[in-house]
Amino acid sequence: MDKPTISLRGVFPPIPTPFDAQGEIDCGALTANLERWNAYGLTGYVVVGSNGEAAFLTEEERRRVWETARRAIPTGKLLIAGTGCESTRQTVALTRLAAEAGADAALVVTPHYYANMVSSQALLQHYQAVADASPIPIILYTVPKFTHVDLDAAAIASASMHPKIIGLKDSSGDMIKLADTVGLTGPDFQVLAGSGGFFLAGLAVGAVGCVPALGNVAPQEVVDIQHLFEARRVEEAAELQRRMVPVNTAVTARFGVPGLKAALDMLGYYGGPVRAPMADLGDDDRRILQDILAEGGLFR
Amino acid sequence: MDKPTISLRGVFPPIPTPFDAQGEIDCGALTANLERWNAYGLTGYVVVGSNGEAAFLTEEERRRVWETARRAIPTGKLLIAGTGCESTRQTVALTRLAAEAGADAALVVTPHYYANMVSSQALLQHYQAVADASPIPIILYTVPKFTHVDLDAAAIASASMHPKIIGLKDSSGDMIKLADTVGLTGPDFQVLAGSGGFFLAGLAVGAVGCVPALGNVAPQEVVDIQHLFEARRVEEAAELQRRMVPVNTAVTARFGVPGLKAALDMLGYYGGPVRAPMADLGDDDRRILQDILAEGGLFR
Amino acid sequence: MDKPTISLRGVFPPIPTPFDAQGEIDCGALTANLERWNAYGLTGYVVVGSNGEAAFLTEEERRRVWETARRAIPTGKLLIAGTGCESTRQTVALTRLAAEAGADAALVVTPHYYANMVSSQALLQHYQAVADASPIPIILYTVPKFTHVDLDAAAIASASMHPKIIGLKDSSGDMIKLADTVGLTGPDFQVLAGSGGFFLAGLAVGAVGCVPALGNVAPQEVVDIQHLFEARRVEEAAELQRRMVPVNTAVTARFGVPGLKAALDMLGYYGGPVRAPMADLGDDDRRILQDILAEGGLFR
Amino acid sequence: MDKPTISLRGVFPPIPTPFDAQGEIDCGALTANLERWNAYGLTGYVVVGSNGEAAFLTEEERRRVWETARRAIPTGKLLIAGTGCESTRQTVALTRLAAEAGADAALVVTPHYYANMVSSQALLQHYQAVADASPIPIILYTVPKFTHVDLDAAAIASASMHPKIIGLKDSSGDMIKLADTVGLTGPDFQVLAGSGGFFLAGLAVGAVGCVPALGNVAPQEVVDIQHLFEARRVEEAAELQRRMVPVNTAVTARFGVPGLKAALDMLGYYGGPVRAPMADLGDDDRRILQDILAEGGLFR
Repeated sequence: MDKPTISLRGVFPPIPTPFDAQGEIDCGALTANLERWNAYGLTGYVVVGSNGEAAFLTEEERRRVWETARRAIPTGKLLIAGTGCESTRQTVALTRLAAEAGADAALVVTPHYYANMVSSQALLQHYQAVADASPIPIILYTVPKFTHVDLDAAAIASASMHPKIIGLKDSSGDMIKLADTVGLTGPDFQVLAGSGGFFLAGLAVGAVGCVPALGNVAPQEVVDIQHLFEARRVEEAAELQRRMVPVNTAVTARFGVPGLKAALDMLGYYGGPVRAPMADLGDDDRRILQDILAEGGLFR
Repeated sequence: MDKPTISLRGVFPPIPTPFDAQGEIDCGALTANLERWNAYGLTGYVVVGSNGEAAFLTEEERRRVWETARRAIPTGKLLIAGTGCESTRQTVALTRLAAEAGADAALVVTPHYYANMVSSQALLQHYQAVADASPIPIILYTVPKFTHVDLDAAAIASASMHPKIIGLKDSSGDMIKLADTVGLTGPDFQVLAGSGGFFLAGLAVGAVGCVPALGNVAPQEVVDIQHLFEARRVEEAAELQRRMVPVNTAVTARFGVPGLKAALDMLGYYGGPVRAPMADLGDDDRRILQDILAEGGLFR
Repeated sequence: MDKPTISLRGVFPPIPTPFDAQGEIDCGALTANLERWNAYGLTGYVVVGSNGEAAFLTEEERRRVWETARRAIPTGKLLIAGTGCESTRQTVALTRLAAEAGADAALVVTPHYYANMVSSQALLQHYQAVADASPIPIILYTVPKFTHVDLDAAAIASASMHPKIIGLKDSSGDMIKLADTVGLTGPDFQVLAGSGGFFLAGLAVGAVGCVPALGNVAPQEVVDIQHLFEARRVEEAAELQRRMVPVNTAVTARFGVPGLKAALDMLGYYGGPVRAPMADLGDDDRRILQDILAEGGLFR
Repeated sequence: MDKPTISLRGVFPPIPTPFDAQGEIDCGALTANLERWNAYGLTGYVVVGSNGEAAFLTEEERRRVWETARRAIPTGKLLIAGTGCESTRQTVALTRLAAEAGADAALVVTPHYYANMVSSQALLQHYQAVADASPIPIILYTVPKFTHVDLDAAAIASASMHPKIIGLKDSSGDMIKLADTVGLTGPDFQVLAGSGGFFLAGLAVGAVGCVPALGNVAPQEVVDIQHLFEARRVEEAAELQRRMVPVNTAVTARFGVPGLKAALDMLGYYGGPVRAPMADLGDDDRRILQDILAEGGLFR
């Protein structure tokens, strides 16, 4: 195999899309957030993914977010664009749009609405067709929590034979599958843990990086988990990972994107409102979230 | 309550969207299909729903399908447009577009990608906001098979208080909930069974009609189930319902939209190809399907 | 086929097992309850099923409950014993014990702990082996809510070929499958709706009776649903069914066996305590339950 | 807290129960298997757990297996008895029986048949009541794959306050929860990974040992994973873990207990038949299994 020379080692926060009080995209806030995150040792960003409320954005809005982010992200850091749609043709179109906007790679979630009508074989053909048509490398993305579909290790291994398909973001949290995937794919296929909650577990079995919502609010801590692990300081890595779990749960499973945005506001970034039908975090939940961030040591 | 005077009693096939060999919408085929279906005692059609591959269509394509269908559907029959999107704002926009295109009502599926971040209360507000902004009546739509979200009877009852929300398409198949929904809502809130497979069961506990994929391939039989039931010829209705179950399963759970389109081709309608990542039915499955249609008595 | 001449037409409440204050079986209370239920037009009873806390009883306790019940149930009414265990050998042993204790038929729930290690074929062989060894007719029982396993219509049809397998209690609530089952099996295979919540829906597509927890607290109403349906008074049947749904939900999905026992206490039967780890209904829930029973018209 | 001084650090294979050709327990085979396993650096064994076909054994059979195993297990190694039943009273009785038979600790699976009728609070009380009545330490056991119930980290933390509750076997595979559990419980509460497939991932976030079906067929390899990890040879540990994943999957998710027993036969242990309704592995599956064991390097 002869994969494109793009390394996914490291941490890629899936950044939220900032909206102003009218619910329109706030490009200034996006730029300001990125300038602050750029100061950390992050390898890049996922822009317009699930945490970016991708499902709520029009094609035109996605383009604006990518272009704005590209200007704010220095050349040394990667912009990975979330481009997965339900149909193959729309996914191809959006992936090309992302490439034009300056994305370094595309993260393509599994189609899912008609999951029981799409065989494993058809899903594989979907990814191959998107990769064939894409100017930029493709990263597979499985997130059963949202899609109720999962890519198994054998399907991932088949897809990994395509020269343009360079990696996987696995948000299933299934460490047996993650280990199996690493074992079944070549050394140039790169697996990213899909959550900061199981980053260390993933590293232990062969992941090279992470796409953590947690990375938006605790970039240094997530980067440190990887550094400590690679320095074989495993107890310290475990200690830090465990300290981060409640924060991770707060900005994902428990309070979701509304919680992530509220946490950013508390930490001096721009969080702002979510789009309906999601609703902004209520006052009681904000107090709980504030305590969790404090407990996690994020107010320094 | 003072609901709009639109009756949902009867059968509304959710029609597939015909594509030509290049995968583009085939308006001629759509018109020809509708002209043939118009000869049956159907009350109307659902246009651009799940069976219409809505998730694969652009906004512009949806508009074209609605406008074409409107021209082919006589005034006495209803055009119900599928307009549900993930965000409230896009659902509002699409519902207005459908109204402009001549739709009589909008069928609004539950948003679902961020299901665990949208409370029952937020979901209710979503429907109220869409109804407030809509020029046409709204029909709630719950289909857990696709969305992994379900509306419970209490939520439906709350939503039913809105003057513009006139009914529900329930594809959950939960007859306890369907009975409860009918019991908890007023006499002018109309419940449609979401599958031809449980139409008779639904009628027995208070549904007034059905949105059956089965209705595309066996319109007379589905209409007859209701007529027999309303004439209290319950054994004959049951006999016909049981005869239709294998056909229903073939064009839904078993072979999905590819099966529905293949069946239409076999029966002299235009079925044509599906869009990727769905794949057209293979030869072996076509033979099985052919036998099921024959067994169901659909080749007369 | 030449099935045993035992008719399952009608209503069979799955009766709870009464415990005294020390948690021991209260045979007197069991007898007293049955004497009262015997006054209604019930066709029989399921004794030591899920609602009888079967999973909490020893083999010896099951035997005592069956023997006591047999003495209290007149010859004209059927005693159906719940005898399904995880292993084929224990199910055979228990079924023979039930027959010795006077049971007319055995209700055999699907084994489920090792569900993913038992193929459809193996499950079929289980039922055939139990039926081969049983002195009394066997009724299949599928209840995915408890077991997370379901018997599909094809598997049921295969099992129905055995001369000793005379019927099915289907608690899945899937009316498409129920209709399909009736269609795929012979006229002497008898399907029972597994819940009073979908009794009427089940009757509409071919069920001949019901095993309703609801039947313990509202025996007359459940019997009336069937009488009204069979007299083709379908609107009255639907009205009664809808009125019973909240009561049914209260003594099943919402408050479970503790709710069923509390309701019996309120209605003058003996309910008494449940065994741990289930817990008796708290005061707040009792008040809610009381209101639901009143609303359902059960305090006359 | 003042937990009993029993260390769970290390590897505890959940051993299968050998049956002879008539399906009766084969005590000689059990003894012979244990004598061979005793040669490895295993810390102990789980006897009569899920892999021991516990659900298929009578109380008397369980006692015989424990007593036989106790005689074959040297004092330096632990016998952990699976004693969880559906009712609190039967769990207490069985735990006492295990203690009399010489068990060092009891592994108590969550009750599950009435899962939706047992609150978190009631489940906690179940464990406390069992621990109060038990002569030996208690290990919590959550295995949603079989039970469709899961213990969350908060519930585990509450239970861990009981002096007799010393640890947890977590088979959920959820590494976020596992990390959270370690973080929320004291240093003397010991967490065991419930599968050899995620042993290394579990060690990375704080597990102290493992209960691996894999350990029956690859005892040295599983012990080595822990040794390599503790020696900070993380790449070698990961390499070995990945090599073991296909073997692990073969004797668990893919072929289950029949696969585990077939693998033991191939490796010179006594595997023998399973009890119905499970069925012994067919010839095709045996060949696949043989290849997987060979690929995993287990025929030396």
